[in-house]
Amino acid sequence: MSFPRWRGRDVISILDFTREELDRLFNEALEVERDPSRYSSTLEGRIVALAFFEPSTRTLLSFDTAVKRLGGQTIGFASQEALSISKGENLADTIRMLDVYADCIVIRHPCEGSSKFAAEIARSPVINAGDGSQHHPTQAMIDLYTIWRRFGSFSNLTIGVIGDLRYGRAATSFIFGLTIYRPRKLYLISPQMLRVREEVLDVLKKSGVKFEEAESLEEVASELDVLYVTRIQKERFPDPSEYEAVKGSYRIDSKVIRSLKEHAIIMHPLPRVDEISFEVDSSRHAFYFVQASYGIPVRMALLKLVLVGEAGLE
Amino acid sequence: MSFPRWRGRDVISILDFTREELDRLFNEALEVERDPSRYSSTLEGRIVALAFFEPSTRTLLSFDTAVKRLGGQTIGFASQEALSISKGENLADTIRMLDVYADCIVIRHPCEGSSKFAAEIARSPVINAGDGSQHHPTQAMIDLYTIWRRFGSFSNLTIGVIGDLRYGRAATSFIFGLTIYRPRKLYLISPQMLRVREEVLDVLKKSGVKFEEAESLEEVASELDVLYVTRIQKERFPDPSEYEAVKGSYRIDSKVIRSLKEHAIIMHPLPRVDEISFEVDSSRHAFYFVQASYGIPVRMALLKLVLVGEAGLE
Amino acid sequence: MSFPRWRGRDVISILDFTREELDRLFNEALEVERDPSRYSSTLEGRIVALAFFEPSTRTLLSFDTAVKRLGGQTIGFASQEALSISKGENLADTIRMLDVYADCIVIRHPCEGSSKFAAEIARSPVINAGDGSQHHPTQAMIDLYTIWRRFGSFSNLTIGVIGDLRYGRAATSFIFGLTIYRPRKLYLISPQMLRVREEVLDVLKKSGVKFEEAESLEEVASELDVLYVTRIQKERFPDPSEYEAVKGSYRIDSKVIRSLKEHAIIMHPLPRVDEISFEVDSSRHAFYFVQASYGIPVRMALLKLVLVGEAGLE
Repeated sequence: MSFPRWRGRDVISILDFTREELDRLFNEALEVERDPSRYSSTLEGRIVALAFFEPSTRTLLSFDTAVKRLGGQTIGFASQEALSISKGENLADTIRMLDVYADCIVIRHPCEGSSKFAAEIARSPVINAGDGSQHHPTQAMIDLYTIWRRFGSFSNLTIGVIGDLRYGRAATSFIFGLTIYRPRKLYLISPQMLRVREEVLDVLKKSGVKFEEAESLEEVASELDVLYVTRIQKERFPDPSEYEAVKGSYRIDSKVIRSLKEHAIIMHPLPRVDEISFEVDSSRHAFYFVQASYGIPVRMALLKLVLVGEAGLE
Repeated sequence: MSFPRWRGRDVISILDFTREELDRLFNEALEVERDPSRYSSTLEGRIVALAFFEPSTRTLLSFDTAVKRLGGQTIGFASQEALSISKGENLADTIRMLDVYADCIVIRHPCEGSSKFAAEIARSPVINAGDGSQHHPTQAMIDLYTIWRRFGSFSNLTIGVIGDLRYGRAATSFIFGLTIYRPRKLYLISPQMLRVREEVLDVLKKSGVKFEEAESLEEVASELDVLYVTRIQKERFPDPSEYEAVKGSYRIDSKVIRSLKEHAIIMHPLPRVDEISFEVDSSRHAFYFVQASYGIPVRMALLKLVLVGEAGLE
Repeated sequence: MSFPRWRGRDVISILDFTREELDRLFNEALEVERDPSRYSSTLEGRIVALAFFEPSTRTLLSFDTAVKRLGGQTIGFASQEALSISKGENLADTIRMLDVYADCIVIRHPCEGSSKFAAEIARSPVINAGDGSQHHPTQAMIDLYTIWRRFGSFSNLTIGVIGDLRYGRAATSFIFGLTIYRPRKLYLISPQMLRVREEVLDVLKKSGVKFEEAESLEEVASELDVLYVTRIQKERFPDPSEYEAVKGSYRIDSKVIRSLKEHAIIMHPLPRVDEISFEVDSSRHAFYFVQASYGIPVRMALLKLVLVGEAGLE
């Protein structure tokens, strides 16, 4: 038996969850996929606040859809309005307000630790929809679910994560998630200046998961079962010419996929800009649209567990 | 029997529809007007995405209302958020995302052909809520319904369309719609530089509808049964003085309406700026608020046909 | 029996209501607090338009929540979109549009009298969610309810209102509300340049409520049962040094609360910026979060009365 239970729980970091707990979530998500109609009034009469202090159309609409597919309602704001929010009100007061209005608060915020701070103030459960540069637990859940659904087990998989491993919260949360599901081997592929941070390496080392850093995809591509791609943002580079130099080696195109194993899948949290060429979309390896489609069942399952609990639906 | 049927159909251009199909739509809209309560759970459990890449408060709220009056839910974004949408994501990926989330996609976009492109990608039906300078099929449906409701038949009507016939998508779609319902005569009234485009004239010519271009309303006002007014936007004119010169002759005021037939109606897709003087609002000819009120039943009927089909409600 | 009744009524100014009518509202709000589940389908099938021409996250979300807790739906816009609203459309046409779409219009607008103007145009009831510098009737209802709930009667209370009494619509509406509930004594505490306007003083004088103006809180703090605090905005002061000078004397901190009566409560319509120090939050006097929590039941009760009437639920 795992403690704490799901009901009423805050979802701040993927590292707060055990494998048992995530398995429970994934089985619920599978149930949602199988028969969504059973879930159509799970959140009847419930209101979920979507507090997005940072733009994120995908994550916002995904939560909005998940709540509504469960028969619930949403209130909230997106970044545009947040700029003027409450005439300079402090975050604590804003959270107290949402806590009065809603049964659950989903928060997206640029600052590290803001969702944890919100959870300390709110009585309702708080779900981190991305804060700072490390935590985006629901994205990690979707990413892990994608592999769980496709391969069943992680123990024979070699997984490569490529892109901005320094500032990208999706990549970091995915890496954290892999310390729970423990693949056979993990490659961290990034330009020198976008390498994984020390504190993330520490978590990896403590977990005992076998990993290796690499600068080029070519060296390792043929070993991979899963290639997880993230954006490399131009603005991270002080010198544009440096960006142009690395860019090419991190673009997934038809040449790259020829070096992949036949059953290897390419994942991406989306949105992509140009790090995956469109020609890849039609290849057998392209799995990012399937991965995206799991966003709804995984978030529906999560909301159900957090707001209603683990008991089956009648 | 008309093919293709309504259910699951994309709504891209008014020209894709036959008179039979539109009659079916209008009879459904009439039913909605007669007994809206019968439709209150038609879209229960359904989600419609409202993807507005361009500002349009009226059309956005009208669709939002129509979905909710049918018992459905909406997700989506308006232009403000669209600016930051998905960090530069391409339209195809955005549409794929919405297609996963929603059962129907309503799209408004500045670029010609974008809704057709969306329809090719999405499995769900796509409804064009205005794109480019020619197509705004649901506005045309509302406009045609207004005349159908008021006069029954089009065959004895002389209809004048006045304003920006070059860039105005409502005007162009209305003109396209008239090639289906075929009035007795059509006057196209505009300043020289805002004349109907060649490709629209071609459609008119092929249709065999009798039409004539005019530069001044005065010449033709007394012949009209319907006067359809649209905005002339100042910014279309390279020389502001030129705008000032034409402006006066396209402003509908009490002087103009004295030259109209007693039963003539004035229509406008709204919003108006100052092309219809407020003094006209209280005249017997003012029909634009009635026309606006048909937005809800026509869009409700359309959503019902596209998402549920032509079968009667229980 | 009081006329006019609640059903179908516009809510423009707190001064339009009698004490009897407000008592009726407060008893309904108490019922909502006691058993919210009885109200979960009160507005089923109804749509409320939230027309916010000015930013106000709290009030907007509060109404949005209230409607949804009553089982209704909302449509509308917040200030960002309002900037582009309807391409320069006049307010009258915008209100006519909302009147077609919705069963009730909640309006927030910077201009004095705009909600009254809207009510004259709309057939549906209009609720003023704040306009100009004087009227914010639903905030006043929440504030009066807070005192009614806490003390039962107003007749033995000494109430101080502190802050910007010149431009602050919450403060002015609260003062207007006190002319209906008539406390024993009212202190109006503000810097010279932010004193209550003449027309508000006239209302107070006519009401016969005993009141006194003061410049410093210290003089009167020990007499107060209720201290109602509002923001003093820096931008009101032509000279920043003048602002700095008055700021200190209007900041509620632990020193101030030591001079309060033991049972005195501190209220604030929120959001606060720094006029109430965080150290006050944990004191027995802090009542602003309780006050904020009444926003939902009071607005639910109001919407129920306006849209459904005074009759009990089934």
